[in-house]
Amino acid sequence: MPVSDVKALIFDVFGTCVDWRSGIAREVAAVARTKGVDLDTLAFADGWRARYQPQMETVRSGKRPWTILDVLHRESLEAILPQFGLAGKLSPAETDDLNRAWHRLDPWPDAVAGLSRLKRKFIIAPHSNGNLALLVNMAKRAGIPWDCIIGAEVVRNYKPVPASYTEAARILGLAAAEVMMCAAHNGDLRAAQAQGLKTAFIPRPAEHGPGQKTDLTPDGTWDIVARDFGDLADQLGA
Amino acid sequence: MPVSDVKALIFDVFGTCVDWRSGIAREVAAVARTKGVDLDTLAFADGWRARYQPQMETVRSGKRPWTILDVLHRESLEAILPQFGLAGKLSPAETDDLNRAWHRLDPWPDAVAGLSRLKRKFIIAPHSNGNLALLVNMAKRAGIPWDCIIGAEVVRNYKPVPASYTEAARILGLAAAEVMMCAAHNGDLRAAQAQGLKTAFIPRPAEHGPGQKTDLTPDGTWDIVARDFGDLADQLGA
Repeated sequence: MPVSDVKALIFDVFGTCVDWRSGIAREVAAVARTKGVDLDTLAFADGWRARYQPQMETVRSGKRPWTILDVLHRESLEAILPQFGLAGKLSPAETDDLNRAWHRLDPWPDAVAGLSRLKRKFIIAPHSNGNLALLVNMAKRAGIPWDCIIGAEVVRNYKPVPASYTEAARILGLAAAEVMMCAAHNGDLRAAQAQGLKTAFIPRPAEHGPGQKTDLTPDGTWDIVARDFGDLADQLGA
Repeated sequence: MPVSDVKALIFDVFGTCVDWRSGIAREVAAVARTKGVDLDTLAFADGWRARYQPQMETVRSGKRPWTILDVLHRESLEAILPQFGLAGKLSPAETDDLNRAWHRLDPWPDAVAGLSRLKRKFIIAPHSNGNLALLVNMAKRAGIPWDCIIGAEVVRNYKPVPASYTEAARILGLAAAEVMMCAAHNGDLRAAQAQGLKTAFIPRPAEHGPGQKTDLTPDGTWDIVARDFGDLADQLGA
């Protein structure tokens, strides 16, 4: 099937739509000020994110039953607080609130305008490892105009498990080739392509800060490579 | 918790947001014309809908595994075609297309404007027995501005199973009392209220046509009774 048959675009969110690193740094900076603690806020963001894949792997591997990302994030947060001088400084409610920093991330500057254009021609939905509440709270705050929310919680699997992609297409009532996975991460696209989905690579060279080494260029035969979401809309005629 | 703590409104769809009876009648009328068959289109709509609860009951009772509404609707459609002179007249593709008439229902005249107001203050989502593709296709066609789609497919249970309501709240990251079930059906509200959700009754006295006998008035202690979605927005300060 050609790209012109695509009916739905599904998006990676952390890194592709929103800038998690600056957002988490901003949120922990506010907490640190309140508590009179001096810490490297970007190192805190990187440290929290470093536990993301290992935490999901405990679910993907079957070591633990299905567990949503808010819970995995909360465990990672408690694990890193001591390294940053925050051990015992936060109440459970304050820890919960900091955990919800992932619900309050800002989109990249081109994201909302590009998605608004794409929404006129396609079904647009996040296909993120974030849970539904995280994604809907983020969208409400940032004005991201999703048509619906798919993601790990709806398909009960974390990317890049193959079934997470096929189930996303099935739930939309579409063939795999009628769905395009849009991401800043070559690995996500590779896994989607292996299941027959179309692919769009949109690099986010600042996702990991100025020293980023990964995902700076496309390393597969993706259907579309776009500079940003505006360029993606241009290339898709939206 | 008072109604002022409500953060999300979840809506019944068939009958409450959209006029399924006229919509199905319109769609089958077009098919009947093409095939040169004369039939009572409203009786066809009523006959198809009459199989809705019994079909879901086969899933709720555990007699069959989880099955989405598109599949249940398709089975019911094949069962009623002979009664209306359509046996053997439709190809599988034509039958599929008529089955997707449920994806192409029109909203009641007040629905989109009311939901657009409510969306500014609340998370708004359908909590329908329709599957996700049905609900997203309907919303795209009709301009219904849902923030996300919940419903039977996401919670893996048909209303009025108690877990379908508690799971809707959990998935939104909210307490039951922070979620309001909005419906034209007293039974739906009774089941939601039993699980701690807030309730709003919006009668739709034309859902079943001029002879409607059920759900003309509230028969429970609902938190809100509203004339239509505009009145619901007024009463909720949206």
